[in-house]
Amino acid sequence: MDHLIEKTISKEILYKGKVINLQIEDVELPNGKTSKREIIKHPGAVAILAITDENRIVMVQQYRKALERVIVEIPAGKLEPGEKPEITALRELEEETGYECKTLSHLISFYTSPGFADEIIHLYIARGLTKKEQSADLDEDEFLDVLEVTLEDAEKLIAAKKIYDAKTAYAVQFLQLKKALGD
Amino acid sequence: MDHLIEKTISKEILYKGKVINLQIEDVELPNGKTSKREIIKHPGAVAILAITDENRIVMVQQYRKALERVIVEIPAGKLEPGEKPEITALRELEEETGYECKTLSHLISFYTSPGFADEIIHLYIARGLTKKEQSADLDEDEFLDVLEVTLEDAEKLIAAKKIYDAKTAYAVQFLQLKKALGD
Repeated sequence: MDHLIEKTISKEILYKGKVINLQIEDVELPNGKTSKREIIKHPGAVAILAITDENRIVMVQQYRKALERVIVEIPAGKLEPGEKPEITALRELEEETGYECKTLSHLISFYTSPGFADEIIHLYIARGLTKKEQSADLDEDEFLDVLEVTLEDAEKLIAAKKIYDAKTAYAVQFLQLKKALGD
Repeated sequence: MDHLIEKTISKEILYKGKVINLQIEDVELPNGKTSKREIIKHPGAVAILAITDENRIVMVQQYRKALERVIVEIPAGKLEPGEKPEITALRELEEETGYECKTLSHLISFYTSPGFADEIIHLYIARGLTKKEQSADLDEDEFLDVLEVTLEDAEKLIAAKKIYDAKTAYAVQFLQLKKALGD
């Protein structure tokens, strides 16, 4: 697949932030011409499709400044440097929702925006949930409501554009597929 | 949901690029404290799940500099200012794959990375495909191979991490769901 590869001529980090870095790369295209690529470097993240014993999906409702609105998502959080995604998933589930889980299994990993960002999301399913005594333990700049919804509720939230992001849409569709397969 | 909202105190555009802008916002959190949000502004995009009369999925294989690797994706492209997503979808399908379609229907729209970006993807299904005389008409910095794969091939490409992005994973799962429902 050498006929597709872009070679790096030079790269410059224009911004180093809390969550993302912005890097501009000069590249040599497959035809020998040059171009610029604007790339967001992100540490990667986990997301957790957590299902209660009553078959409710645990979701969080939070304000997303990038969208200037509140949306409903499955719990998620950024990887800490060197941390295994499974550990991040257990931590974020507990911090955001107050739930511990008996089983955690990997469902899929995907890049969210390969055209401009290296963010990868590792999606897990958590079952055997038990609520801890104390409630959620959020980051100091994190505010959210925890919701527990049925699959039918989730489908309505998608139709109402309250669930509106790729990882949550994928997770809901996964449950629709499981149901259609009779699992 | 006022108890979740972050108010903008100030915003500064740090970078204006070809594809993305980087904007730093000082915000007032729900508890009155302040924080910074790093936000990528993106024009939005379309993606097309195009199915041939032989029930093959049309995919494109391309190098993604952000990932430093080749991946296989459904065709996609950025919205031009003021352009209706349906028009972008028809244009991108034809430019990237050489296919025109008889029917185009909206499947879902979702934000890819609501934690730091406002990119939205509008996903369409295209059917009634006919290949135009001339082949693909790509942007000058765009190089890709067109593939036509069965659903089973697509599942193998996911397992092999060649299909590795959210929109394509969602589209493949949609076809699995349709199949499970007997459509």
